[in-house]
Formats: sequence, structure tokens, C-alpha cells
Amino acid sequence: MNITVGVIGAGALGTAISQNISGNVAEIILLLRNKELCDEINNCRYNSQYYPNYKLKDNIKATLETGDLSNCDIIFLAIPSSAFRKTLKDLQDIVKKDVIIVTTAKGIEYPSLKTMGNLIEEYFDENYVALSGPNFASEIMLNLPTVTNIASKSYENSVKVKKVLSTKQFKVKIIEDIYGIELCGILKNINAIANGICEGININENARFAVLTKGFNDTITIIKAIGGKSETVHEYCGFGDLILTSTSRESRNHTLGILYGQRLIINENANGVVFEGKNSIKAIRDICLKNNIHSDIVNFVYDVMIRKVTPTIAFNNLWENME
Amino acid sequence: MNITVGVIGAGALGTAISQNISGNVAEIILLLRNKELCDEINNCRYNSQYYPNYKLKDNIKATLETGDLSNCDIIFLAIPSSAFRKTLKDLQDIVKKDVIIVTTAKGIEYPSLKTMGNLIEEYFDENYVALSGPNFASEIMLNLPTVTNIASKSYENSVKVKKVLSTKQFKVKIIEDIYGIELCGILKNINAIANGICEGININENARFAVLTKGFNDTITIIKAIGGKSETVHEYCGFGDLILTSTSRESRNHTLGILYGQRLIINENANGVVFEGKNSIKAIRDICLKNNIHSDIVNFVYDVMIRKVTPTIAFNNLWENME
Repeated sequence: MNITVGVIGAGALGTAISQNISGNVAEIILLLRNKELCDEINNCRYNSQYYPNYKLKDNIKATLETGDLSNCDIIFLAIPSSAFRKTLKDLQDIVKKDVIIVTTAKGIEYPSLKTMGNLIEEYFDENYVALSGPNFASEIMLNLPTVTNIASKSYENSVKVKKVLSTKQFKVKIIEDIYGIELCGILKNINAIANGICEGININENARFAVLTKGFNDTITIIKAIGGKSETVHEYCGFGDLILTSTSRESRNHTLGILYGQRLIINENANGVVFEGKNSIKAIRDICLKNNIHSDIVNFVYDVMIRKVTPTIAFNNLWENME
Repeated sequence: MNITVGVIGAGALGTAISQNISGNVAEIILLLRNKELCDEINNCRYNSQYYPNYKLKDNIKATLETGDLSNCDIIFLAIPSSAFRKTLKDLQDIVKKDVIIVTTAKGIEYPSLKTMGNLIEEYFDENYVALSGPNFASEIMLNLPTVTNIASKSYENSVKVKKVLSTKQFKVKIIEDIYGIELCGILKNINAIANGICEGININENARFAVLTKGFNDTITIIKAIGGKSETVHEYCGFGDLILTSTSRESRNHTLGILYGQRLIINENANGVVFEGKNSIKAIRDICLKNNIHSDIVNFVYDVMIRKVTPTIAFNNLWENME
């Protein structure tokens, strides 16, 4: 396609998306903040911070200037949710009027309880696209088989984004539940933490998979309450990502849960690594309270992370209510 | 409760069930075939074949005589599905008229396409109870936290069985979908094999979890087609057991899949170990054909196990159709 696509964020996912779509589009403008990395990408074609062994395609141009995104038809936001609002502000007056914004972030603003999509609506309109699925960025970078979901209030925009993303190995399934897709991404992190806590306190497998089952059902309850669909939780962005994140060793939120379970309190802000789940638990608990939803899994994670209840005591409370 | 419960099969699960209910009932009659093991249990209180380190409770009586089950109010069948029909025949004229039969087996008879419950109906009536969940027997034996589902056409029977099984650590949730609970147990083995094959051919995680997502949705489609409920697949016996079996190293069917993926063809009958999934795949494929259901996951496993298609080729076919 003869279009220019912007990608904001040259982390693991932003770089992988750039590489993945490079065969489908004319040019990719990859916006990042680090001058050294920008020069490295443009001069050597490597992102040594994330993928030291994979040469980037020639039509990926790194830039430090937001202004360079002015001609983009589609812009992927592959940045942490904490940087979302500022980035949207910066973009607002620069980009094309009919640009399609795609969010890959899984956060929720606190205490506004706004998803990243809600923030996009504030600065643009409701026709943004959300992307979510069981997707390790490193595997997308390697062109390994991957499926993802996208959703938008504009079906037309979903179709356009699907065309840009799809390759033989990278499959894209459009669903129509924008509320559900975003909430799935947020709730899977909470489930990953819940499962991690159980692992950290050495809970047996029967119980851990019971907790995961409860979490899956709580996810459905919460998503239905906010206007999403139960079927969305059956999707790649629901079931698939929930299981990937909760059982894989590569998930940061899962590891965070293990550390909480082991009562090893790390400095979560020390090296710029973002744990979306920690930021989300307060917000999701508020959403539950507001909508009169009782979720034992949300309470369990909230108790351990925020109320600092001893993990084994929190688990015993959870178990008492299990059925 | 002042009742006598029978358990048929002193394998991993039968022994664990016996131990688990020992505090709830007067006496457990554990029927088995091996005389040496029978003597060991009665004289030394150990089942050294399965649990050499755990002493059995005193009210567990091992026997070789089916006739000793004549006073039982409830009988658990913890035997492989291949032994079901013969066992039911043997029981028929011996047991109490109002005995409740509980099945834990996950097989399906071929080519009759009858579930173990259907076989019980042939010899007894439709008021049997099926038990299924994410339940490693060894963890039940150790009294570790576990949840399971039971279902029956007779709610009263479900309540009775729940009372016998429930302890502080062993939770029982009654559901009302007898078709769904039995099919979940069968389909999870097929999914575990599918996931194992992918692991055996070294498929990346994004793709494996996409395959698992597809398998979850195919499970819902098949269960709805045979008269079960979608919600059953959300349950411990559905979601929970599917994930446990597909991701754990302890699952035999998962391992069988890995071996097929690696093209290591083992002698499945050599040591009496039963792979329910292998016996089930033909039956499930027939059910799909009969009900006009297309399941890519069922076809994938059928291709590899029965049609002997090279696993990587079978995976490529599966991937072509993924979305």
C-alpha cells in the first residue's frame, strides 16, 4: 500500500510492529525519544536495546520529531499508558485530520478510570482502533505465527488497520467490541498478578487453575457490566492473552505477582520498566465498586498489593469464598 | 455421614477420592483387581504403587470382590473408560437399587459415540453424577486446595455427592449440564494433544496460545451442538481443566501430543497406561461430521494421530485457516 504509517515508541512492540508492516506499506516513521537509538536505527538499521540480532527493514525511518508524523495515515501508539496523555496532546495539532490512531497499551488512567481509548477520544474522536492478543513482541519481530484482535467503533478503520498489519504469519481478526477488547487487556494483567501471587506462595496447581478459572469468569462479569460482550472474553484478546500472560515466565505482571507472593518488594520505578497491572488494580476495584460487582480475584490482588495483606492470609480469604 | 461409599479403581484418582472422603463417611469399600495391592492396603495402609508416602485412613477397606459393594449408597467409578462397560455389567445385579453412580472417566466409546454416562444409563438410569475439574489426583491425596464440578440430571443426587466429597480444602460446585461436563472432559484431552503437538514441533508461544484459544472456542461450538451449554465451558471442568491439562507437564495427553509432534511413536498399550485422548479423537471427529461442525483443532489432531500427516504440514494447514 502506498501509505505512510507512524509508530510511536521504539520499545519491543513498537519496533516489532514496524518490522511486521514494513512489507505492506511505503514508509514507517518510528518516533522515539532517545537520540542515540534514533541514530543507530537510521545509520546501522539495528535497535540494539531490544533486538540486537535483527536488522530493521530499510523503509523504517526513526525520528525524534513529532512533526514528522504529519503525513501518516495510521499511527500506532506503542507506548506505556503513563505516557499516553502527553503524547496525544503533542500529536493533536500535527497529524492529518483523518488519521487513524491505534492503541496497543493496556492501562487505565487513575482516578479518571479512562482507558487509553477514552483518552484518544478526548483528543481525537471515537473511531480509534484497539489492538490486543496473545502477542509476545519478540515473536512478532521474528515473523513467527501470531494472531491478534482489533476493534473499533468504525468498522472501516478496523479494515484499514487489518490490511496494514496482515501478513502470512501475522493474522488479524476484527471484533466489534471496543469496550471489551480494552478491558480484556487490563484485566488479564490483574489475573496474571493473581496467578503470580499464588505461585509466589507455592500454591498447588489445582488451586492455581481454580483461581484462573474464577478470574476468567470475573473478567466476563466485569466486561458485561461496563457494556462489553461475553464473547470478547472468548477471543484471542481475552482467553488467549489471559492464559499466555498468566502462565508464561515472560510476563512482567506475572513475575510481579510472584514477587509479591514471596514478599520481595521491588522498586517498581527504578529502571523505567512499567507494570501496567499495578496501576490498574485501583482503577478496576473502583469500577467494581461503582458497578456493584463483586470480584474475589480483584479483591485478592487489591488486598495483597494495595492493602498489604499477607499473601497467604489473602489466599485463605479467597479460598473460603471459592466455588 | 453414616453411609458406605464404594470406589472402584485404586489408581491415583480412586485412592485420592477414598482418602478425601474418609472423614465424611462411615466406610469406604475400595474395589481393585490386584491381590497384592489389596493386601498391602488392608494390612499396611499404603498404596505403594501410587502413594508410597501417604498412609491411608483406617476406614478404607480394599477388596477384590464386587459383591462387597452391595451395601454402598454411592459408588465412584475411577477406572479407565475402556473398563467401564464390563464393570457396569458386573455391578448391575449386585448393588442397591437406589445407588448413585459417579463417573470420573473422560472417555467416549467408539464407534457407539457413547460417553461413560451414556453407558451408565444403559445399565442403571439417567440419574448418575459426573465429576470433572482441574484436579491432579496427587494434590487431592495431599489434601491441597482443589475445586471440582459435578453434574447430574438429578439435582438431589448432585447434592448427596457434594456432601460426601466436600471438605474445607476440597470444594464442589454443582452445575446442571450433564452433557457439557462430560464433553468438556473429552475435549480437553484433544486440546492437550493439539497443544502438545505444537510444542513437539517447537511452535512459538503466540501461535500455541492462539491454537488453545481456537480449541476453547471449538469446544464451545461442539458442546452447544450436542445440547450442552456454553457456560459449562467457562467452568472449572471446562476452562480450568482445559488450561491445566494443556499447559502442565503432568498431563499424559499433553505429553502424548509432544511425542507425536516429535514423531516419536510410542507403544501406547505397552504398560497399561491409558491415553483417553487417542481413543476419543475418532469419536469426536465422527460427532463433528454427524452434527455438521467444522473444528480445525479436531481436524489437526485427527490428521496427525490418525491420518499420520507430518505434524509441521498439519500445523501449516491449521495456520492457513486461523483467524
